[in-house]
Amino acid sequence: MALLNKDRLLPADPGVRALARDLYDTIKDAPIISPHGHTDPRWYAQNEAFPDPAQLFVTPDHYVFRMLHSQGVPLEALGVPRVDGGETEADGRKIWRLFAEHYHLFRATPSRIWLDHAFETIFGFTERLSADTADMYYDRISEALQRPEMRPRALFEKFNIEVIATTESPLDDLKWHRMIRESGWGGRVITAYRPDPVVDPDFEGFAQNVETFCQLGGQSGTSFAAYLDAHRDRRAYFASFGATSTDHGHPSAATLNLDRAAVEALYDKVLAGKADAAEREAFRAQMLTEMAKLSCEDGLVMQIHPGSSRNHSDPILARFGRDKGCDIPTRTDYVAALKPLLDAVGQDPELRVILFTLDETTYARELAPLAGVYPCLRLGPAWWFHDSFEGMWRYREMTTETAGFYNTVGFNDDTRAYLSIPARHDVARRVDAGFLANLVATGRLTEEEASEVIHDLTHRLARQAYKL
Amino acid sequence: MALLNKDRLLPADPGVRALARDLYDTIKDAPIISPHGHTDPRWYAQNEAFPDPAQLFVTPDHYVFRMLHSQGVPLEALGVPRVDGGETEADGRKIWRLFAEHYHLFRATPSRIWLDHAFETIFGFTERLSADTADMYYDRISEALQRPEMRPRALFEKFNIEVIATTESPLDDLKWHRMIRESGWGGRVITAYRPDPVVDPDFEGFAQNVETFCQLGGQSGTSFAAYLDAHRDRRAYFASFGATSTDHGHPSAATLNLDRAAVEALYDKVLAGKADAAEREAFRAQMLTEMAKLSCEDGLVMQIHPGSSRNHSDPILARFGRDKGCDIPTRTDYVAALKPLLDAVGQDPELRVILFTLDETTYARELAPLAGVYPCLRLGPAWWFHDSFEGMWRYREMTTETAGFYNTVGFNDDTRAYLSIPARHDVARRVDAGFLANLVATGRLTEEEASEVIHDLTHRLARQAYKL
Amino acid sequence: MALLNKDRLLPADPGVRALARDLYDTIKDAPIISPHGHTDPRWYAQNEAFPDPAQLFVTPDHYVFRMLHSQGVPLEALGVPRVDGGETEADGRKIWRLFAEHYHLFRATPSRIWLDHAFETIFGFTERLSADTADMYYDRISEALQRPEMRPRALFEKFNIEVIATTESPLDDLKWHRMIRESGWGGRVITAYRPDPVVDPDFEGFAQNVETFCQLGGQSGTSFAAYLDAHRDRRAYFASFGATSTDHGHPSAATLNLDRAAVEALYDKVLAGKADAAEREAFRAQMLTEMAKLSCEDGLVMQIHPGSSRNHSDPILARFGRDKGCDIPTRTDYVAALKPLLDAVGQDPELRVILFTLDETTYARELAPLAGVYPCLRLGPAWWFHDSFEGMWRYREMTTETAGFYNTVGFNDDTRAYLSIPARHDVARRVDAGFLANLVATGRLTEEEASEVIHDLTHRLARQAYKL
Repeated sequence: MALLNKDRLLPADPGVRALARDLYDTIKDAPIISPHGHTDPRWYAQNEAFPDPAQLFVTPDHYVFRMLHSQGVPLEALGVPRVDGGETEADGRKIWRLFAEHYHLFRATPSRIWLDHAFETIFGFTERLSADTADMYYDRISEALQRPEMRPRALFEKFNIEVIATTESPLDDLKWHRMIRESGWGGRVITAYRPDPVVDPDFEGFAQNVETFCQLGGQSGTSFAAYLDAHRDRRAYFASFGATSTDHGHPSAATLNLDRAAVEALYDKVLAGKADAAEREAFRAQMLTEMAKLSCEDGLVMQIHPGSSRNHSDPILARFGRDKGCDIPTRTDYVAALKPLLDAVGQDPELRVILFTLDETTYARELAPLAGVYPCLRLGPAWWFHDSFEGMWRYREMTTETAGFYNTVGFNDDTRAYLSIPARHDVARRVDAGFLANLVATGRLTEEEASEVIHDLTHRLARQAYKL
Repeated sequence: MALLNKDRLLPADPGVRALARDLYDTIKDAPIISPHGHTDPRWYAQNEAFPDPAQLFVTPDHYVFRMLHSQGVPLEALGVPRVDGGETEADGRKIWRLFAEHYHLFRATPSRIWLDHAFETIFGFTERLSADTADMYYDRISEALQRPEMRPRALFEKFNIEVIATTESPLDDLKWHRMIRESGWGGRVITAYRPDPVVDPDFEGFAQNVETFCQLGGQSGTSFAAYLDAHRDRRAYFASFGATSTDHGHPSAATLNLDRAAVEALYDKVLAGKADAAEREAFRAQMLTEMAKLSCEDGLVMQIHPGSSRNHSDPILARFGRDKGCDIPTRTDYVAALKPLLDAVGQDPELRVILFTLDETTYARELAPLAGVYPCLRLGPAWWFHDSFEGMWRYREMTTETAGFYNTVGFNDDTRAYLSIPARHDVARRVDAGFLANLVATGRLTEEEASEVIHDLTHRLARQAYKL
Repeated sequence: MALLNKDRLLPADPGVRALARDLYDTIKDAPIISPHGHTDPRWYAQNEAFPDPAQLFVTPDHYVFRMLHSQGVPLEALGVPRVDGGETEADGRKIWRLFAEHYHLFRATPSRIWLDHAFETIFGFTERLSADTADMYYDRISEALQRPEMRPRALFEKFNIEVIATTESPLDDLKWHRMIRESGWGGRVITAYRPDPVVDPDFEGFAQNVETFCQLGGQSGTSFAAYLDAHRDRRAYFASFGATSTDHGHPSAATLNLDRAAVEALYDKVLAGKADAAEREAFRAQMLTEMAKLSCEDGLVMQIHPGSSRNHSDPILARFGRDKGCDIPTRTDYVAALKPLLDAVGQDPELRVILFTLDETTYARELAPLAGVYPCLRLGPAWWFHDSFEGMWRYREMTTETAGFYNTVGFNDDTRAYLSIPARHDVARRVDAGFLANLVATGRLTEEEASEVIHDLTHRLARQAYKL
């Protein structure tokens, strides 16, 4: 008995499955390229043991606690910290038991696949998590976490990670990255430039952030010219810690290309806190174009992650703060939204923009046609709620015929759940193997071609697209 | 020769089909739970014979006459009554022949599956309906309808219906439900509270409806307080006839949570007929939140069915009235629309809201993420145009990975076509068996789990979600 | 070794494939009905040899050069002419080599299927195009193009084309069509009426176009009455050259049905160049209804092709002009948009309107429900970016259950790439065979029915829908 079926996620048809298995076998042990994620650089810097099983798998994982909450489990009972510092469950074993009792909720979800993968391949479990096995799991994981081979750096090597990117604010001093570099450890951990705190007027403390930012960027004031130069400076600083990309989490994909005087007036208004909602959106839109122009200068690859309605529940936000599983995708437009940026710099051979979406209707209608003609555009992989078997399959089905494989960029794990990284890449590899096997079985690709493409999708495109 | 293939709708792959058949066999004879539908309570109350075949299968079924109309058959020729009382076809046999001649139009549609299922399992036909077999069908059905075992109550028992809900207006006195109860017959037929005539200012006779409603609800006036108390009173009255749910058919999913003074002002304006379109929409939106608050009080499960552009054709509406197959789905937003209601009462453990959609793009993008975090939300099954093999399959594929199985509520037949009820539930059971078999075949679920989940989807979740 | 797999695009499951192959075999050699396309009538009129391989396959094909451009190949290097007449690559062999080096980009795209089909069936290639085989391809194609059996008329017969429609502006004198007719050649080449230049105020030279148009249409002035009569006249002229349809490529599907005075005022304003964007859109919307009314008079089948954001890139438009692969689909509404037209003439038995979309979300939500009830409406096949294996499959899956097969119109190749026509029809035939085989295998259709439907989808529905 095992948690994992050897042929999981491969096509059910025996003939197609055989083809898929052959393809999968050629890349299943390929190194992990993780160009976009949210692991904590402190882990690699300090290399300390992870805390108890609940702190590792439940309390910080919004995929997990959102599902339990949807069935009436209060977030307090899962140890999620309250904004007011009020009491929440502190007993890891109690949290773990609650999680285990509800484990059936995850049937047929990606969380179940990721968790079972970690449970079996990292901790050796062969019996499913349930109320009955909760304590056995808790004890064994707790004990294992104390062992040296479970430290972050050891896992990095066990996971066969070639390179992993973290994401930092321009206000971050990158001290953990510095510590990693100075430690002499050979793991390649790089940063990425995520300027939301200084380009989004709705971000908490925006004006103060900009002031700090300009100082950090070596500027004597906060004029728009100084502000742009601060970006130049901080981007170079990030690049010196390995960054090859920037990341932009705007509510929409709106871009603008105003003339300089208009931009400066808008910037002044926004900084003074006098801009209305439309003007704040306009500033974000303009800043995407400014960032693209800076990418033409310094070559950093630009990632755009739009379309999430963040912190949808006011009561949850008030009680538990941001990022508590209440981010809901919204309908997103790219065609009109990206036109100003693309008209400005879309033909520049130095620019590369990787587009993501939470609105699958845009795959075939907007994103594949755009990426299928603009030299600067590439499509990021199926993202967040769509980072799943069905989500990835739909992504390939709806983008490939128009954009081909070579306008896509391989897989991103996009996670802060360190132990799920091998599982996530494995799911992507299985989907791609199955998808290619299906193309071979239906005469759309030869086996030789599929054997080449599976390598492109697993590692080559990620290295190329992210300049790694 | 039979009309029905024994393995219909099960996956084509032999291995997966075998798994699916095993799952299906365990629940194919499970009782029917029908928590949301539109059968006429009078049928169960009076238990009279159904009229002729055309009146049973063609003239009242918008799925059927819309398809014939789409190919140029005038509704008059199908006996659909005219608003002006003008002549329409009255000869059942002529209508039936017209239907039979066009039966090929239904190839690969759910209507074909439902009709063939009734034709074979209720009337014993083994030859397909066509121009050639029209009279044979007509004669045999006509004759059968006269037999006692074809009366509504006998069919109820034959269909193995555990409970069925009808839908009534708050203005309804529920006399048929009273007659059923007083008849001593053991069939469980319950009502559901559908307040559209008194919460939708665009409903015919709205102001008069509200006045009648307040009187029926024991109020001396029509103040907003009285109006809300009338709701309390009528909801309790409906609950005394078994109602466990309310149902809301708004054009959009918009909700609002205005302060009391603003609500009262809006109510007064709407009642006075002085509200513009935006204010009437605002009133509907506010009333969804008011209904949710009343559900927190009395525990009635709330169902929201938004997004139909009703009576799309002016000429058809003028000539034949409402509900003549011209209701067309529209793009529907849930994320911003539901926020006011969810912020107000979305964390209340007493509240349960079941969401439906005619816009499949919202499954993965909006509905599954919302239901996957809000404790009050559940997803209703694939609805109306999507109550079909492909529609249900897409529903499971696009909701399960984010919301799981346990934020869904089993199947609704949602029909006034009584003889189609077993067929409709059978389709859902086959889809679920096939879907689960596919998960087992691709290593995403064990057979033991699938055996449990198929029971959840067939009957347990419906009982739980609707408090039956 | 061959480029084409004999069973390509048929379902992978062996049992379903056998069914599909049987169905396909019955229609694979059926004549091609091509009721909507963009081949050049001059080809059939003059019957001259096609130029070199690059001019045939690369430079004029936006499917091809857009993909190469998306990976950084400048359009100049592919010989695409510049607006300013500046230099672009003129050496066909150099262009061809560039294309060949990038041929892997087309893996799993429809272009690859179309190209390989032409390469193998027309030119006899059995080795894939690549940098290595580029010259071999170029030489063999160049040589073949000089042979008489490669002239347009010979290919017309080889392709087994029963009828093909081209598309002309009302300003066109149809001289090539006249030459075809007068040549005595028996090929049936008909025109279609595409009035965009005289109904779209945003079209280049609109006012001048209208003036010329009214003269051509035998009118002495340009009053709205004269303008409508000119349409009547030109439509009749087109019909005399075989036209059975009109075609309308509006940015949206918006229609209006204003009263005559309002229409005339709008027309005058538009013609005077004083209309704002909303008024220009209103005029296009009104003209769709006017065209529908004229179709009620003269029986021409109306085609509506909305929802493309044309010439999305300003720099490409400025440098290379229109139609350079930068047309991007946009979200499109049909429900509210078509209501005015449908209320005006939607029940007229003379009217037939064929709807197309680039927004697949409308298939199940809007288009199938509309076509499933309005007698005038039919659904055009999967269009443009969706003219592909997956696109056609989604089209059938999302429209059939609600609209059935008989509210669809068979396949359109919609192409100016003459040599791709057999390949495109072949893809559609294979998809339909596979789709029907799947219905048979899952008990939704009998084999006898599928054998009939495959003929409907391949040729009968196209003849009926387009009155050919």
